[in-house]
Amino acid sequence: MNDQPARRNIKLVIAYNGAAYHGWQRQREPLDTIQQRIEQTAVTVMKHPVAVRGAGRTDAGVHAAGQVANFYSTNFSVPLFGLRRAMNSRLPNDIAVISAEHVPESFHASLSAIGKTYRYRIWPSPAKPVELAGQVYHYWRTLDAEAMRLGAVRLIGTHDFRGFATSGEQRENTVRTIFRCDVAEQGGQIVVTVQGDGFLYNMVRNIVGTLVEIGRGRWAPSRIDRVLATRDRRDAGPTAPPDGLSMICVHYPDPL
Amino acid sequence: MNDQPARRNIKLVIAYNGAAYHGWQRQREPLDTIQQRIEQTAVTVMKHPVAVRGAGRTDAGVHAAGQVANFYSTNFSVPLFGLRRAMNSRLPNDIAVISAEHVPESFHASLSAIGKTYRYRIWPSPAKPVELAGQVYHYWRTLDAEAMRLGAVRLIGTHDFRGFATSGEQRENTVRTIFRCDVAEQGGQIVVTVQGDGFLYNMVRNIVGTLVEIGRGRWAPSRIDRVLATRDRRDAGPTAPPDGLSMICVHYPDPL
Repeated sequence: MNDQPARRNIKLVIAYNGAAYHGWQRQREPLDTIQQRIEQTAVTVMKHPVAVRGAGRTDAGVHAAGQVANFYSTNFSVPLFGLRRAMNSRLPNDIAVISAEHVPESFHASLSAIGKTYRYRIWPSPAKPVELAGQVYHYWRTLDAEAMRLGAVRLIGTHDFRGFATSGEQRENTVRTIFRCDVAEQGGQIVVTVQGDGFLYNMVRNIVGTLVEIGRGRWAPSRIDRVLATRDRRDAGPTAPPDGLSMICVHYPDPL
Repeated sequence: MNDQPARRNIKLVIAYNGAAYHGWQRQREPLDTIQQRIEQTAVTVMKHPVAVRGAGRTDAGVHAAGQVANFYSTNFSVPLFGLRRAMNSRLPNDIAVISAEHVPESFHASLSAIGKTYRYRIWPSPAKPVELAGQVYHYWRTLDAEAMRLGAVRLIGTHDFRGFATSGEQRENTVRTIFRCDVAEQGGQIVVTVQGDGFLYNMVRNIVGTLVEIGRGRWAPSRIDRVLATRDRRDAGPTAPPDGLSMICVHYPDPL
């Protein structure tokens, strides 16, 4: 009897600067995506076909510090440390594998997730942040971070977030739970951190776009309550650009 | 009699993230360069043809915090503050005009310069710096910054730097004066700062490439003396990638 499983399930934590890519999700050639880069690199290292599943489909220009993906491999000859190193040396400078580990057969990067944390960075100043181009939302005027914070805390809890979803959101159930929604000032930037059990299409960028309208004084913080009540996208602010957004962490049950 | 001069000479200080551009210097379309972007924007704002001269031709992928350019304009209706603002709102996120000022008719961004300061940033770690992709030289191993510093100080002074010029350097006189050459550790990065009265083609990148060989232990700091003595490019290290390099400052006589 051979007790060795026929394949192993490998979980990757991945960081990337998404400025040069057409998002996470595989697209038709010649559109360059993170998923294709990760898959192609895994195929090269493992020497067999690989299908990489990601925890979330970040849009074009969106970044990640802790995207998660998994794939199955029948190649047992490559140790995890060697896998990470081999992938990193083959991936471009703006994509990195932070860690690689064995996980149970049932682990699925997207379906097993119980939550995600996103960070959104705003540069509120007339001075253009060329060193951070593509990594922050450059807003030309100053913003009232305290007003934004007062709006942000109103999002915490279980609500129907349909008003913060870009039309095209296909999911029937638009109720989500936000555990955390902070607004902090850090080194001249305004950083919005949102943790929730799930997010609708463009939800973080629409939340940020609404908080910016509050921060520039167009709306009071209570505007958040109105969007949650009417569930009407037209009551929320514009979709903030992808540049400032990064998927920081994907949360899973412990133990898996 | 009309005493108003027929034109004014305008000096711009410019910052850019060069990752997306084919360098400073104008190229044939469709190659996108900083000079073309600045010129096209100045033409749009000033409403007449403009020829922008830069202080130095940064290569593809090289950045600037203080590139200098000048151009002549017969349009006296645009105030300098309005010029800067109008250009910044039209330029892409990764190019910014830091300042615009009137300078004497004789000022020439390149010919009037008496020196330049460059900074080169190295990320010496097995961890890939995806947030800084394109802005630092990722070196996979640790480096001995003190050995690099001991090499760097040997460059200070007036020397023939031919050994640090990439072949293709056209200038007959390869003697330059380096006023400052520092190696500092900052937040996990190694930052090399070089100030001189002029630089040969790829000179900073070849100096850094040589210092990295010293930092990784292949050569002693005295290797610098050998390159200065033999003036042989083959004695120096490889050309460091453009990513880490930024033109920080161009120096002019005071007053102009």
